[in-house]
Amino acid sequence: MTKQIRFNAFEMNCVAHQSPGLWRHPRDRSWQYKDIEYWTDLAQILEKGIFDGIFIADVLGTYDVFHGDNRHALQGAVQVPVNDPLQLAPAMAAVTKHLGFGITTSISFEHPYPFARRITTLDHLTKGRAGWNIVTSYLSSGAKNIGQDDQVSHDDRYDIADEYLEVLYKLWQGSWQDDAVVRDRESGIFTHADKVFPIEHEGKYFKVPGIHISEPSPQRTPVLYQAGASSRGKNFAAKHAECIFISVPSKVLLKRFVDDTRQRLQAEGRDPNSVYIYTLATIITGATDQEAQDKLKEYQKYASHDGALTLVSGWSGVDFAQFGKDDRIQYIKTNAIQSLLESYSTADPSRSWTVDEVAEWTSIGGNGPVFVGSAATIADVLQEWVEETGVDGFNLAYAVAHETFSDVVEYVVPELQKRGVYPQAYREGTLRHKLFGQGDHLSAPHVGASYKR
Amino acid sequence: MTKQIRFNAFEMNCVAHQSPGLWRHPRDRSWQYKDIEYWTDLAQILEKGIFDGIFIADVLGTYDVFHGDNRHALQGAVQVPVNDPLQLAPAMAAVTKHLGFGITTSISFEHPYPFARRITTLDHLTKGRAGWNIVTSYLSSGAKNIGQDDQVSHDDRYDIADEYLEVLYKLWQGSWQDDAVVRDRESGIFTHADKVFPIEHEGKYFKVPGIHISEPSPQRTPVLYQAGASSRGKNFAAKHAECIFISVPSKVLLKRFVDDTRQRLQAEGRDPNSVYIYTLATIITGATDQEAQDKLKEYQKYASHDGALTLVSGWSGVDFAQFGKDDRIQYIKTNAIQSLLESYSTADPSRSWTVDEVAEWTSIGGNGPVFVGSAATIADVLQEWVEETGVDGFNLAYAVAHETFSDVVEYVVPELQKRGVYPQAYREGTLRHKLFGQGDHLSAPHVGASYKR
Repeated sequence: MTKQIRFNAFEMNCVAHQSPGLWRHPRDRSWQYKDIEYWTDLAQILEKGIFDGIFIADVLGTYDVFHGDNRHALQGAVQVPVNDPLQLAPAMAAVTKHLGFGITTSISFEHPYPFARRITTLDHLTKGRAGWNIVTSYLSSGAKNIGQDDQVSHDDRYDIADEYLEVLYKLWQGSWQDDAVVRDRESGIFTHADKVFPIEHEGKYFKVPGIHISEPSPQRTPVLYQAGASSRGKNFAAKHAECIFISVPSKVLLKRFVDDTRQRLQAEGRDPNSVYIYTLATIITGATDQEAQDKLKEYQKYASHDGALTLVSGWSGVDFAQFGKDDRIQYIKTNAIQSLLESYSTADPSRSWTVDEVAEWTSIGGNGPVFVGSAATIADVLQEWVEETGVDGFNLAYAVAHETFSDVVEYVVPELQKRGVYPQAYREGTLRHKLFGQGDHLSAPHVGASYKR
Repeated sequence: MTKQIRFNAFEMNCVAHQSPGLWRHPRDRSWQYKDIEYWTDLAQILEKGIFDGIFIADVLGTYDVFHGDNRHALQGAVQVPVNDPLQLAPAMAAVTKHLGFGITTSISFEHPYPFARRITTLDHLTKGRAGWNIVTSYLSSGAKNIGQDDQVSHDDRYDIADEYLEVLYKLWQGSWQDDAVVRDRESGIFTHADKVFPIEHEGKYFKVPGIHISEPSPQRTPVLYQAGASSRGKNFAAKHAECIFISVPSKVLLKRFVDDTRQRLQAEGRDPNSVYIYTLATIITGATDQEAQDKLKEYQKYASHDGALTLVSGWSGVDFAQFGKDDRIQYIKTNAIQSLLESYSTADPSRSWTVDEVAEWTSIGGNGPVFVGSAATIADVLQEWVEETGVDGFNLAYAVAHETFSDVVEYVVPELQKRGVYPQAYREGTLRHKLFGQGDHLSAPHVGASYKR
């Protein structure tokens, strides 16, 4: 059987998420991110296209590495201003039935006890369509604003994250038995008190004696997303994640990542194919190849190189303003330790990239590739990527909101369906069941399953 | 001119909020609190009735004083399970245009930096209809679950709260100038970076150097609600609140509270009538007095005395299980310092209350009065309360969801409108402007107004 292709939408509660400058395009709607209608319209487009979900990224800091301050980020609206992602989901849930919601929140910013309730609430309100993208840190400009002089060390963060997850599993999985809530009008018993258990957690970082304050939601634990790129992050993902997001510019790197991830899953005792990997991409399409190419050219007129370098500087921690636009990445690489820079230079091992080329690459769709062409051309490329790398799907960014997503739904989805490599309809049930067809709850050997009574 | 009457709805993301046991009533919908439709239906009922807003209470702990544990709370669904209030507002905003949202959150559970963004986001998504009910603490069973062995002292809490508000005012009011965001497509300037200011806050409890991460929302600062009952709490309210909620069983106590509050406002240099005071009440109405009385009798069959005493024990900190049902409050009062108990005994100074009478009183509509009768009867009572106490409006609880609110909208609102004492329509604009008609933002002499550049 030909491998199926899955789509996910990549968004953020801000302007021109992965395509800095494109808010200047006359048809772009991303400057309307503050309005509820922007999100309810988008949710309906995505559900029409049978997208697995919408993944809402987040930062709680500004990109202040480029030129050493946040001026360029503010001026170009490079992921600032940015609003809370969580509150978008209930509004989108009110106008859809199937779309999943992958909400990003950092474990650094809220205690697991109130956080557990937030996510349980989201899962109730969406009737089991909640996903959580686990982030262990934000930009250091964000950490400073919650009174931390600098971020805790990288590995410590993952130790804290492991215990944070342990507390959550105890609350979500273990505190209430399935049959605790009976709502028995005759006896007046709403909940059997002896089927609700205090979790009595006493760990290194957290102390939570009590019961989960919410009754179990359809999925109990939300679908767990992760996007860790470091080695420690990858092990964390191999242990906890059910869906993994990656952003790389090439098939070479993607295949390396997919293989590595499957191996780590196996090492954790999990089926290596039980986790979906979605890779970042942007699709620009139209009725013909020519129309799509023309669209790309038109979009590029609005793309911002400064905005792109603001992002790249923030991601890498290296101020790209210090280099000339023709300087080559290899040179920069010797000064930097970040995997991001390596990824550019190894995207095509035979090629070296100038700073200007990096800026151009990043200015539409961030670090991922841009696929341009008619539905047939795009379908060929997507199938090639899937076949050659073993990836499960694509985390699609937009160039112009919501045109990019509408075009994908109008052109590409029907072509993929025709080829038998894309779902014809959603599966009924919770997000987890829609994705994996194995029921609503975490199941063994996932570590979270063992916490259920 | 006859004084106008305002309505607000009192809800909580749980079962049978102020009427323990009423979830057993066959027409009650409150057990559907987990569903988005429960809330969108309610929002539309309230907006039809031109309610100022919906005030969503919250606790993040269980009522565990009665009999010394949380068994009775769990069994009777006495405000447990309880879900996050914040996420209800975006869904309700999607189906309404005018209704305000008063969301309860405690300053104990989230750092002001991410919290500021949550509320700004809510104000954007609701197009300026966000309100925040400022709570300084939860039940001690909640504090334990975020790793605090006991709650910080009462007065310290208000010192922290004052600084918390200071950080918020700096972020909401002072960080972005009104003309910072220009979204100029020609120049590529979305935000004038020199019109966005880091707040550089260094206080006793918080250190926040950076800018607010969100652009200004329609109201900048949400409408500020408070329900403090202690002397320190009342001073805090007199300084910050724009709407104040109180729950007392009688006119005598209400008048005392209203007079005291107006005096404290004056002492703070504010117009004593610039703050709306809403008092808790439950209205049971129908086509005739008889129909309303029959409805009450029918409701009472489902009310739970144990549930009521679970609430009263939690509110007062005194375990009512130790007393006989005929014991009198005066006796109890000598053992308790809580104002709640005093309030029962002074509701009618000539009367003393048995524990059983307290339970009956509390079992429908909590600590507030229950008004029963036809629209004309209710209107008479409401007008009498307003005239004799100087209160501005009523924070209406429900006995049976959503029947209680539907009945008020169907019977009482038109009667009040006929008498010229209730709005015929909403004022256009933000929640603050709808309420006070003085614009979208805090204005002098409110302390928050001074933080705006």
